[in-house]
Amino acid sequence: MSKIDFLALEDWSPDAVDGLLRLAARVKRGEITGGLERKVLAMVFMDPSLRTRTSFETAMFLHGGHGVVLEPGKGSWPLETEPGAVMDGETVEHIIDAARVLGRYADALGVRSFPRGGDWAVARQDAIVRNFARYCEKPVINLESARRHPCQGLADAMTLREKLGMTEGKRFVLTWAWHPKALPTAVPASAALAAAGLGMEIVIARPPGYELDPEDTASIRRLAQERGGEFVHIIDDPDDALVGADAVYVKSWGSVKLYGRPEEESALRSGLRDWRLTPNRLRSTRGGKGVVMHCLPVRRNVEIDDAVLDGPNSVVVDQAENRLHVQRALLLELIGNAGSSRQVTSAATGDTPT
Amino acid sequence: MSKIDFLALEDWSPDAVDGLLRLAARVKRGEITGGLERKVLAMVFMDPSLRTRTSFETAMFLHGGHGVVLEPGKGSWPLETEPGAVMDGETVEHIIDAARVLGRYADALGVRSFPRGGDWAVARQDAIVRNFARYCEKPVINLESARRHPCQGLADAMTLREKLGMTEGKRFVLTWAWHPKALPTAVPASAALAAAGLGMEIVIARPPGYELDPEDTASIRRLAQERGGEFVHIIDDPDDALVGADAVYVKSWGSVKLYGRPEEESALRSGLRDWRLTPNRLRSTRGGKGVVMHCLPVRRNVEIDDAVLDGPNSVVVDQAENRLHVQRALLLELIGNAGSSRQVTSAATGDTPT
Amino acid sequence: MSKIDFLALEDWSPDAVDGLLRLAARVKRGEITGGLERKVLAMVFMDPSLRTRTSFETAMFLHGGHGVVLEPGKGSWPLETEPGAVMDGETVEHIIDAARVLGRYADALGVRSFPRGGDWAVARQDAIVRNFARYCEKPVINLESARRHPCQGLADAMTLREKLGMTEGKRFVLTWAWHPKALPTAVPASAALAAAGLGMEIVIARPPGYELDPEDTASIRRLAQERGGEFVHIIDDPDDALVGADAVYVKSWGSVKLYGRPEEESALRSGLRDWRLTPNRLRSTRGGKGVVMHCLPVRRNVEIDDAVLDGPNSVVVDQAENRLHVQRALLLELIGNAGSSRQVTSAATGDTPT
Repeated sequence: MSKIDFLALEDWSPDAVDGLLRLAARVKRGEITGGLERKVLAMVFMDPSLRTRTSFETAMFLHGGHGVVLEPGKGSWPLETEPGAVMDGETVEHIIDAARVLGRYADALGVRSFPRGGDWAVARQDAIVRNFARYCEKPVINLESARRHPCQGLADAMTLREKLGMTEGKRFVLTWAWHPKALPTAVPASAALAAAGLGMEIVIARPPGYELDPEDTASIRRLAQERGGEFVHIIDDPDDALVGADAVYVKSWGSVKLYGRPEEESALRSGLRDWRLTPNRLRSTRGGKGVVMHCLPVRRNVEIDDAVLDGPNSVVVDQAENRLHVQRALLLELIGNAGSSRQVTSAATGDTPT
Repeated sequence: MSKIDFLALEDWSPDAVDGLLRLAARVKRGEITGGLERKVLAMVFMDPSLRTRTSFETAMFLHGGHGVVLEPGKGSWPLETEPGAVMDGETVEHIIDAARVLGRYADALGVRSFPRGGDWAVARQDAIVRNFARYCEKPVINLESARRHPCQGLADAMTLREKLGMTEGKRFVLTWAWHPKALPTAVPASAALAAAGLGMEIVIARPPGYELDPEDTASIRRLAQERGGEFVHIIDDPDDALVGADAVYVKSWGSVKLYGRPEEESALRSGLRDWRLTPNRLRSTRGGKGVVMHCLPVRRNVEIDDAVLDGPNSVVVDQAENRLHVQRALLLELIGNAGSSRQVTSAATGDTPT
Repeated sequence: MSKIDFLALEDWSPDAVDGLLRLAARVKRGEITGGLERKVLAMVFMDPSLRTRTSFETAMFLHGGHGVVLEPGKGSWPLETEPGAVMDGETVEHIIDAARVLGRYADALGVRSFPRGGDWAVARQDAIVRNFARYCEKPVINLESARRHPCQGLADAMTLREKLGMTEGKRFVLTWAWHPKALPTAVPASAALAAAGLGMEIVIARPPGYELDPEDTASIRRLAQERGGEFVHIIDDPDDALVGADAVYVKSWGSVKLYGRPEEESALRSGLRDWRLTPNRLRSTRGGKGVVMHCLPVRRNVEIDDAVLDGPNSVVVDQAENRLHVQRALLLELIGNAGSSRQVTSAATGDTPT
């Protein structure tokens, strides 16, 4: 099998990611048209999406292709993932067959499947997206799973480069924020991995009990070190967090330790409303000019104050726009027509594990 | 900001509307192909739609563009509209951010948001569609709000011209009809504004208690007079209503006075089943040849009898088809590529308030 | 009216079906591009679909056209089908008007409407799809109704030809399988009609009480005989069923006799779990090489064992892929642009009843 999937940023080599980002910059400048003629991307959304589906559907169209959006709804397409299962219960189709068939209709497959509570040891396997990749003969793109949101990570990386220029050694602060719900950790893990891949100094600020999955923390640390950056420290105070930051990534997420125990998680979270990015805290960033990032949607005046979101430091709308451009680059790389007007970088084809 | 929105027919100058209608006629005759290459329309349907989304999606495609359909469902994308809100409750995204981001992916944005009961003083503000227009940097098209359905109004105007030729001074009768539900007033208000803009004599027939919003009635009267037509009278008898009519627009709507008080509204409406367009009543139109219009879907034998709908006076299917053509013209006008095969009328760019 | 619908395989002449299958083979080999430029297919799904909508949407796109997908949801677009109905109840639109309007926007209309329980004498009329065909001025394609799934039947026929070469006189076994739910009979009836049209020997194996609708059985018998095949017998033993089979079509369906009496049907079905295609049973096919077909989704290890589905006899993924190619051919035939690169076979235009 020579196909390449895009399930997590760290599955691709740093050079391959760098190639994507350079291609995305060219795409954004309008240097590349076409390249996806007669190509179809089928997107399976187990969970709702507005931004992701709009940006992917637009990406396909802008280069001559077509995106098919399948929204079976919240869990309404109960797929079997266990090999050998006797399917006399609730699951109506095995992922083996779903993946094989969609691979015959489309040139690539996008899959979104959020965690559904229960046991983190199960959820962290990302069984739905991993099995689609295993059984589909065409490239599979992770549109957000329990563990990763690599398209968001790509957009984050592109935005960091645009706003900071050279990223090596600059300080990236991922800071937890309060939110009325316990959200998944896919976005914060992917953002930190993106920044680590750019050789940045990584700081993670979160209240005690809100550590990321230990394997994710280890991956971030390892990648940062490989790329010449550093995993400086983990901070548990929202005021100390932002000191000297070149970029501040605000995000709320639920406690991994208390995953599947919503009452306990909610009780722990209830005392943490002070974790909010205010204009005052923003002043402690490097020269008061740290850029403010968020994947959106954002709870205004809960995660981030209006004055910050609507002020000069915020780059959240550019960041959202970059979703479109990195995805155009990704699609051109994965399924682009040979001989299209782009210069194929082939950056992903050498050393990418699949 | 040089962008132009299409939120209500009367926001555009009569000349601009006239330019759209002439462009729509050329589009319908097949004189114009292309013009929307690489253009994307994102449509946000807070409420369901079959006709509107099919006609807009087809309109984009026929000229080389693409329509993205977002259907968050009935209220399932709880958008915050209050400036400065502390979003720790049910709303998950502020319309400021939604509008800004969608404006980065798409070249124009369509928004449908029906009234949701409660207080008419609130609903009549059309906060969702007005705020999308305010915060989105791209043109916003009203796909039906509490107050207006201007795309329907455009199709109504095109149909009146097609069927009546010169419209000035001819009689347009908007007549209420019974319906088991209390429907919004966006369509009747928009239809009367469309006819007024064509210089027609306007008659509104409705039972006592079913007056339109006073501001809408005033706008209709003012526009009719400006265009050389007249607001003849308001009639409260379904038999008298149609005398001398050149066009009869049948539509049911709920009482604005009793908005948010469904039991009282239902009690008032219950005695009004006689408000139905019958073949007998049709005879009192001018020469018995008045054209019969309805925006569809229509409750057969409740709003209009089968014999009328399937008879020679009915133009309802042509009227529905014209949705497609006026929307093609609108999109070419708002976001059409310069140098496309159409001759850009620029009718909207001069004196249009935005 | 010169328009041609595609509501049931047997509505088309054998020559017309043969023409479609030959066109589909050319399409699959990549010999035909384009042909649907500026064409729109509107698909109305009263019931959910992933495969059908993906394959049709892809089919339109690959030839330059566009598919609009309308998913009013499970019964959420209550259409009136009775002529003359006084629509003061739950139905919001008459199918007369829906069909007429969609026919103005699109070049062809696809309709899916499953049976909804109640009375089989009513359900078997296929009122929704038949009325859409009656009132729409454009071709209507049945995307699966209570009685027929002709696009699946076409894909079945294409697959039989691909896998068996000459089909005349070869043995086609349609065998019932257990399933936790009582499924419709549209697929088994259509599959047997497809095989009959290829001149195959038809065997139907099912438990007593699971006979198809008598009219369907008669149609299968008549078509088989006309095409030089034979309706050999009906078998009520899952072991005897497969002897000498060249092709085995596994499918579960509910009892037509007990339609609308779910408790009785469930009780009858409960003792029939042994109806499952096992590797052992597969050995009794001709030379152990009978091809195994299923329309998917399939309940693994309930309808068919893993070892069969993942073994060399299974052609279910090719069969699913062929949905795409037969539909491309069908669309080219029904609404393809004259002068496109394909050689129009015109096979359907001579003797096709509409």
